[in-house]
Amino acid sequence: MVSYLITGCSRGLGLELVKQLVKDESASAIFATARSAGPSLDLERLITTSNGRVHFVQLDISSDDSISAAVAKVSSHPNARNGLDVLINNAGIQFTEDDNKINSQALQDSLSINVLSVHKVSNAFIPLLLQGSLKKIVNLSSKMGSISIIAAGIGADRPTPSYKVSKAALNMLTVQYALELSADGFTVFALSPGWLKTEMGGEGAHLSTEVGAQQVLNTIRESDITFNGSFRDIAVPGHDYYRGGIVPW
Amino acid sequence: MVSYLITGCSRGLGLELVKQLVKDESASAIFATARSAGPSLDLERLITTSNGRVHFVQLDISSDDSISAAVAKVSSHPNARNGLDVLINNAGIQFTEDDNKINSQALQDSLSINVLSVHKVSNAFIPLLLQGSLKKIVNLSSKMGSISIIAAGIGADRPTPSYKVSKAALNMLTVQYALELSADGFTVFALSPGWLKTEMGGEGAHLSTEVGAQQVLNTIRESDITFNGSFRDIAVPGHDYYRGGIVPW
Repeated sequence: MVSYLITGCSRGLGLELVKQLVKDESASAIFATARSAGPSLDLERLITTSNGRVHFVQLDISSDDSISAAVAKVSSHPNARNGLDVLINNAGIQFTEDDNKINSQALQDSLSINVLSVHKVSNAFIPLLLQGSLKKIVNLSSKMGSISIIAAGIGADRPTPSYKVSKAALNMLTVQYALELSADGFTVFALSPGWLKTEMGGEGAHLSTEVGAQQVLNTIRESDITFNGSFRDIAVPGHDYYRGGIVPW
Repeated sequence: MVSYLITGCSRGLGLELVKQLVKDESASAIFATARSAGPSLDLERLITTSNGRVHFVQLDISSDDSISAAVAKVSSHPNARNGLDVLINNAGIQFTEDDNKINSQALQDSLSINVLSVHKVSNAFIPLLLQGSLKKIVNLSSKMGSISIIAAGIGADRPTPSYKVSKAALNMLTVQYALELSADGFTVFALSPGWLKTEMGGEGAHLSTEVGAQQVLNTIRESDITFNGSFRDIAVPGHDYYRGGIVPW
């Protein structure tokens, strides 16, 4: 039995991850967090059909108080009495920037949410993860955060430079956590979920949110301590761009 | 004749870069900036012996107003009538963090100064650099910002995790600027100055500030557009760890 906490579950990939975990009987508890005071309609629908396995937790990752309150709520929840097994840092922001040039406010906000907040959330949930058996922290990153890939010109035309900078920083953050927590048996890795047809990804994206979520969960299930400190791609059968394995930094 | 603007020249590497450029007759103008209202005593000494080639400019890179004022001051300076040739983003901060664990405030400040401020300064000086002939932006990074190196465990024990995260982000920022400005003939690259015996580096560091500054300037002089978007090491003859060439991301 595996317990999960996923951030950013109102819509998009976060919502779809919850949806697919509801169908997965080994997922005994799914703490679905979102910034809003209550669940979105879509998330509410999943909660009511989940047989008490999906729990909504308000979590505005930009707020220290909200993080503390969320940790307190999960810690006292009967379905977290054996701690948490998997933390999926999914919540994040992306700005489209004029002329593909960095906008100062976009950069500031992207670093704050996609890096600093992920640190704060991860750090706050470490005690619960220590009580869990799997001890996995999965940071949803992006190939757009691979400096090697962007420097090679691939994806360079995607007008989201601040997002790219923030995801490169998130990758190093992931490595720092991996180093720090390896002695405690943690598996901390960055995972590119693919370019998905969410609100963030847009209609021109490569994959349906469903396929992306499936492969994200497959990768997390397959992951073990050899994944610690690495940057992973999803694998989509028949798709040249998504072959699984390691993404270069 | 080459004109330079260097941030963070009160002490350490920035001060030493100015010192060595004073001895370089091809350096026609050296705009030495620092956060303080006036030059440090050491910088003042260099200014008085520079034959009018070193100019102090107050620049607190954390302040938008200060950046605007610095650009205005340099733009109206007679020694910048042909623009600026080389911008060296040297100013930065590093925190030693307890137990080698990320401290939230340290991470926030490191991202703000080492990434966001470097963006703001670079962006603000682009018009002057466009008027210059060399069009070089050199971002002083660190091998500690190489995710590949840290993930391999090298330098992992240096208790400066937020610095590492910020320098990885700076590297992607460098690539973004390189992509954006290549059509205008710019050369934008990240350069590791080596681990130097400055106040930041400490006494246990590998190299004297003098050697680091020499090799930084040598690398900048040798750089051409093939350096655009790359991460470079200094070369120190006889030193295995500083061989020049490319640093992996």
